Amino acid sequence: MNIPKNYQVLFLPGGATAQFAMVPINLLETNQNADYIDTGVWSQKAILEAKRYGTINVAATSEKKDGLTVIPPQDKWKLTSDAVYVHYTPNETIDGVEFKWIPDTGDIPKVVDMSSMILSRPMDVSQFGIIYAGAQKNMGQAGITVIIVREDLIKEVPSWVPTLYQYKIEADNHSFYNTPPTFSWYISGLVFAWLKRQGGLAKIYEINQRKAKKLYNYIDEHQGFYKNSIHPDCRSLTNIPFSLQKDKLTDTFLAESAKAGLTNLKGHRLAGGCRASLYNAMPEEGVDKLLEFMHDFARKHG
Amino acid sequence: MNIPKNYQVLFLPGGATAQFAMVPINLLETNQNADYIDTGVWSQKAILEAKRYGTINVAATSEKKDGLTVIPPQDKWKLTSDAVYVHYTPNETIDGVEFKWIPDTGDIPKVVDMSSMILSRPMDVSQFGIIYAGAQKNMGQAGITVIIVREDLIKEVPSWVPTLYQYKIEADNHSFYNTPPTFSWYISGLVFAWLKRQGGLAKIYEINQRKAKKLYNYIDEHQGFYKNSIHPDCRSLTNIPFSLQKDKLTDTFLAESAKAGLTNLKGHRLAGGCRASLYNAMPEEGVDKLLEFMHDFARKHG
Repeated sequence: MNIPKNYQVLFLPGGATAQFAMVPINLLETNQNADYIDTGVWSQKAILEAKRYGTINVAATSEKKDGLTVIPPQDKWKLTSDAVYVHYTPNETIDGVEFKWIPDTGDIPKVVDMSSMILSRPMDVSQFGIIYAGAQKNMGQAGITVIIVREDLIKEVPSWVPTLYQYKIEADNHSFYNTPPTFSWYISGLVFAWLKRQGGLAKIYEINQRKAKKLYNYIDEHQGFYKNSIHPDCRSLTNIPFSLQKDKLTDTFLAESAKAGLTNLKGHRLAGGCRASLYNAMPEEGVDKLLEFMHDFARKHG
Repeated sequence: MNIPKNYQVLFLPGGATAQFAMVPINLLETNQNADYIDTGVWSQKAILEAKRYGTINVAATSEKKDGLTVIPPQDKWKLTSDAVYVHYTPNETIDGVEFKWIPDTGDIPKVVDMSSMILSRPMDVSQFGIIYAGAQKNMGQAGITVIIVREDLIKEVPSWVPTLYQYKIEADNHSFYNTPPTFSWYISGLVFAWLKRQGGLAKIYEINQRKAKKLYNYIDEHQGFYKNSIHPDCRSLTNIPFSLQKDKLTDTFLAESAKAGLTNLKGHRLAGGCRASLYNAMPEEGVDKLLEFMHDFARKHG
């Protein structure tokens, strides 16, 4: 991932959710507004927090089409011409939807929560105004967040803003204004080196695509038993929610899969059902094992 | 360390310095004021940040007496009767001063930055309104902070306060409102268990007292060569700054001590000179080695 010269990379303590406040606090001046796209739980959390700091226009919301969740195409968005930025969540971990495209917002910078997408594939940083991402998906431990911010968006802020919520202070001090989460940062360094040894982002993307394709194909080919309710154009590469057509078998599925060593398959408590998260650290063999298990389970209970 | 029933313990991401803002934001309502005691660099940082959020009265400041730094006794403090809280820093890591006593503030709660003191000795939590402490001294990794807060101080805050800066939300959600810094928290748990195996806080305090006494005694007995400029009544148990009477020998001292495996003896860049930090993780043998080195160095260069 190339970082253009006019961007700064900050490594700040805490999780990505702090950015839900930091983004509007640092970008919105009095009476300014921003556009947000609502594609799921994480978008909604960002919107809720941003509303404390300015006028927030929800320009588009995920909808159902023939029973499948879709991210509305850009021609349906109601962007405002004077928005300071457009915020969206390229991948929703709970809802399982993903942008396969980058919106065109003209001169208005795009601000994105990339927590669950960063380093899963090559990415053109220059397309975005701010990219923020918690480390705990593809970059290491919970407790450190990366913010890649275009320098013209680093501004003076009003005096009520806590020091640690000011991009300018963090940028001027190269993320060392206060003791950074040193060990977490070190671990992220090891993960970056590991990624390079795997062949870099192009290679990881190939692997991630194979992993996701296998699982989606299996689910689609066994729709009598399993189901994923996301439109194929918007399916997440990383977080694949699925349900069993016989809903009451879900607990049995989770118990038996755990017994087989396949853990963390329970869907998020807000979504129910099952979910397989195929972050970089999940090897392809893990997906193969899951498919074997799903196949056996379907034969046994189908 | 017993936590009384009317206190909550929060484990929040990031460092203790976030509390410099969180304390006044959560405790001070409009037009309210607080008293702060200035005993050094960390007190001053807390004061500077608090001034964004209310009227801050500096009720006392460290001073020099016969060339030695002293914390002024309480009868010299100018506390205000309507202060919402009194903030002080029981141990100053850079200045090397420590409160050997707990101020009497009547019904006004004491708020303390215990980052460099917590778990160095037994402590009566009920004496304080809020105790906050970054983990990276005696509790584990940088990137997690413990806040022990008396429940009556957990209040509703104005809507401009970022969600993650609200004690109430963190307390209501038992520090799980967002993904906590899980690995750092786990490491702190291991440190707590290690402390118990050492014999608990009373035992650690004995060891810490022996460590500090050895070093102070040695310095005092070799004042022709080494010097500590803190009044004996206010000397830190943990952070012991010292200088060489021949100032130009400092770099040689630091270079030779590093060669002997004694590292991190350079004074903080704001203070200069040398500093030995005797946190719980520094074994008594480490102090013995340092004294041997200091003795050899003084003979060689004295």
